[in-house]
Amino acid sequence: MSFIATPQSMHFDEPLPLQGGGSIHDYDLAFETYGQLNADKSNAVLVCHALNASHHVAGVYEGQPKSEGWWDNMIGPGKPVDTNRFFVIGVNNLGSCFGSTGPMHPHPDTGRIYGADFPVVTVEDWVDAQARLLDRLGVARLAAVLGGSLGGMQALSWSLRHPQRMRHAVVVASAPNLNAENIAFNEVARRAIVTDPDFHGGHFYEHGVVPARGLRIARMIGHITYLSDDVMNQKFGRQLREGLDLKYSTQDVEFQIESYLRYQGEKFSSYFDANTYLLITRALDYFDPARAHGGDLTEALSVARARFLLVSFTTDWRFAPARSREIVKSLLENNRDVSYAEIDAPHGHDAFLLDDARYMNVMRSYFDGIAEEDQPAGKEAA
Amino acid sequence: MSFIATPQSMHFDEPLPLQGGGSIHDYDLAFETYGQLNADKSNAVLVCHALNASHHVAGVYEGQPKSEGWWDNMIGPGKPVDTNRFFVIGVNNLGSCFGSTGPMHPHPDTGRIYGADFPVVTVEDWVDAQARLLDRLGVARLAAVLGGSLGGMQALSWSLRHPQRMRHAVVVASAPNLNAENIAFNEVARRAIVTDPDFHGGHFYEHGVVPARGLRIARMIGHITYLSDDVMNQKFGRQLREGLDLKYSTQDVEFQIESYLRYQGEKFSSYFDANTYLLITRALDYFDPARAHGGDLTEALSVARARFLLVSFTTDWRFAPARSREIVKSLLENNRDVSYAEIDAPHGHDAFLLDDARYMNVMRSYFDGIAEEDQPAGKEAA
Repeated sequence: MSFIATPQSMHFDEPLPLQGGGSIHDYDLAFETYGQLNADKSNAVLVCHALNASHHVAGVYEGQPKSEGWWDNMIGPGKPVDTNRFFVIGVNNLGSCFGSTGPMHPHPDTGRIYGADFPVVTVEDWVDAQARLLDRLGVARLAAVLGGSLGGMQALSWSLRHPQRMRHAVVVASAPNLNAENIAFNEVARRAIVTDPDFHGGHFYEHGVVPARGLRIARMIGHITYLSDDVMNQKFGRQLREGLDLKYSTQDVEFQIESYLRYQGEKFSSYFDANTYLLITRALDYFDPARAHGGDLTEALSVARARFLLVSFTTDWRFAPARSREIVKSLLENNRDVSYAEIDAPHGHDAFLLDDARYMNVMRSYFDGIAEEDQPAGKEAA
Repeated sequence: MSFIATPQSMHFDEPLPLQGGGSIHDYDLAFETYGQLNADKSNAVLVCHALNASHHVAGVYEGQPKSEGWWDNMIGPGKPVDTNRFFVIGVNNLGSCFGSTGPMHPHPDTGRIYGADFPVVTVEDWVDAQARLLDRLGVARLAAVLGGSLGGMQALSWSLRHPQRMRHAVVVASAPNLNAENIAFNEVARRAIVTDPDFHGGHFYEHGVVPARGLRIARMIGHITYLSDDVMNQKFGRQLREGLDLKYSTQDVEFQIESYLRYQGEKFSSYFDANTYLLITRALDYFDPARAHGGDLTEALSVARARFLLVSFTTDWRFAPARSREIVKSLLENNRDVSYAEIDAPHGHDAFLLDDARYMNVMRSYFDGIAEEDQPAGKEAA
């Protein structure tokens, strides 16, 4: 069993300006910390989460032995990101449904549940909100920002918005932006939710329903894109769910893969907020640091000062290695210090959450290096 | 403009036994023919269709200059499958919504619209129904059976169910069965349709509605899988639909790819029958000639007597070249005569419907060879 984690919350009165215009005020951020901040406050690691995750990154909750955080294999005492050496901060993003202020909460001015009126938040907004949390925690400069997938986009964005506040950016299974196919899958998922009659224009809370049909479809699509073709064939193949005989039915479950997807969809629809799903997929769509530079990623990354580790997985077709290599190339063109590991793993995009000895070794070795740095403040901020 | 095509229909009283049990009787098959059957009736080519297609394979309808058949670039006078030399037969499959008897028609015994009670039909059932149509047309033996995607599965199935009735099987962009990922996409599409409140258990006709939301989602998913990543990036990339400014909205169209998918979904939902969609995707799922042979495709194909052309496209991730190669390998292990072309085309699965000089040349050359065969009946049926 892992160590005991304790969720915390921080309230922010002051308005946070948002990239899409306007601002949000009187919001809370849920977070957790593991390990101890050292005397010179140089060992803090911020962990950013992806779509279906939260501030509960590692450890278990008191009395809930199966409540491991989503990156518990990566982070903890003696683990690759060793909490005996690092002070790790997990933070739940604005718009989430897992603790921080989101569409399920009341608007502070009107008292009405935000619903679809929750402002559109971007990766950059999340990063700025995280920076304010660090101010409050007394962390002026991070040892590293770490994230996978959408979390990797936040780590990359950190290096551009707050280049002096971090020594390292660790960007796992990520991309400098979504391609057309990625956006397409997000759009289908959103349409499934928005066209569900129970969505009620995003104000379904008032009707005592949730757009469960749409959420199920969204999650099923997601699951297909998280897995590799190989792993699906290996795990499910054409295996039937029951016995050896076909039932010849268009609506009953016939194959194991159908049963798996229906189960995943059902489970997800029982706890995930539909408006949060829209917000998070949109944040993915919008992220594109090169956009303000006419599509020139090298120019966009020129402000970065951190040292980088990028990791990708060969069978990840959602965020393929080629996308990580674009980031590596642009960083090298800026003469940044970059390490890159392309892990030959069969698990598709999901690989970034799974145990793979080579992956874990790369991460351990990189974070050991960070911990052992002789770190006079500001040295790399050349 | 292409030549004028004329749809025809044939009624069948006698029950057709179905693979899933039971039978169907008093059904119609819509079909078209192009070119002339020669004196020794040796120049007939049967064309089998895929998901969203019909018996209208080539030509245009009188007075409708834009009504080209779905494979009009392939089939016609002087085209790769030259109707000056071949008698080409296009047939609409049972369960379709384009002319042959399907879920939108009344059950002959009860007069009630079939709806979800239309029997589950398989590739093998379609092949048997096509064989009966050929009996009526006086075609004892085909020069070739030709199909792409699901149509390719029918061509392969023909070579197993009626090995003596054909000289050639031309199997384009197809597979010996669906893999787990293929089934998964079909299942998500079906769930979107079936869980649409307007589906009414498949008897929506009685309610004067159609499950348009579900059909839209199904079609959007389909379109993503028909295209390659490359072609999507090239055609749409991250291009915005309007101007240069982001709107920051979770529900409005922001990117061109979203607009394209919504349009395709909308169009499809206005004409395609939901029950037909369920039936056809299920026929895809079920097709697996190796199943009755413990998964041994070589054993399954041992009864084939035809000569084969297989064609695949490098960027087709729905029916990848590796799947065509499985068929090639198994045919070679049976000492069959096989030609195989792997076309380096950027268009994904859609490539089989598009003009590509190398692809068209392969097809033309193969069909020229068929036309020039000195063909004493039964020669290849060794």
